[in-house]
Amino acid sequence: MKFLHTMIRINDEAKSLDFWCNKLGLIEQRRREVEAGRFTLIFLGAEGNPDSQLELTHNWDPEEYSEGRNFGHVAYEVDDIHATCQKLMDAGVTINRPPREGKMAFIRSPENISVELLQKGDALEPAEPWISMENVGVW
Amino acid sequence: MKFLHTMIRINDEAKSLDFWCNKLGLIEQRRREVEAGRFTLIFLGAEGNPDSQLELTHNWDPEEYSEGRNFGHVAYEVDDIHATCQKLMDAGVTINRPPREGKMAFIRSPENISVELLQKGDALEPAEPWISMENVGVW
Repeated sequence: MKFLHTMIRINDEAKSLDFWCNKLGLIEQRRREVEAGRFTLIFLGAEGNPDSQLELTHNWDPEEYSEGRNFGHVAYEVDDIHATCQKLMDAGVTINRPPREGKMAFIRSPENISVELLQKGDALEPAEPWISMENVGVW
Repeated sequence: MKFLHTMIRINDEAKSLDFWCNKLGLIEQRRREVEAGRFTLIFLGAEGNPDSQLELTHNWDPEEYSEGRNFGHVAYEVDDIHATCQKLMDAGVTINRPPREGKMAFIRSPENISVELLQKGDALEPAEPWISMENVGVW
């Protein structure tokens, strides 16, 4: 038995790929376009374990995607959480929970999926601007 | 960068572990009980890739966990989808979407998380009782 993927639904493919790939760094592994069902499935993986994927389901006919409380977040380990958060912030992504202690941060995808970022190994030495940065919203 | 886990919230730890471990076959990898925050985190992994985990967050003070539409499901690959579904059915789990073509099934956790099961490799030869089994609810 093997974990394959976590599926989330998206409305805006361009915005989602910009966030998950360009900004966060996941890599598109494969996609399947189903004309008859009017949907596209896009599978994204991180370079460290590209087979544990995030499946983006894009139904071509727009639907409203509410946020539930039974689903929490997807989490990724990063090599340098300060550098990752800086890169995300420079790209316009809000750091909802800054890595004040050099270990953990939370952001959100354009369609409100909560994403946890965790520093690989030991926490980094706490550093500004993160130490003084307030939380924004919920995650 | 590496995928770590998908987090879901649960209210009933016993029921959840019975489903995810006893019935579905995941294995508890580690747990962290935080008395001060009144929560327990339980990390479950499949034997094929135990580091790609499902994190169960159990807040000790009950909360209602609505289901959102932005989150879809978590998916696992199994060696024999007929045997897996039979075992789940014998354990009282509803097969919401039976593996009629020997390839894909959907079930739900006690707290309404949709779980996709996918046959490893090629589809199995379609077989009863699955071929004639109707869908139940949504997934």
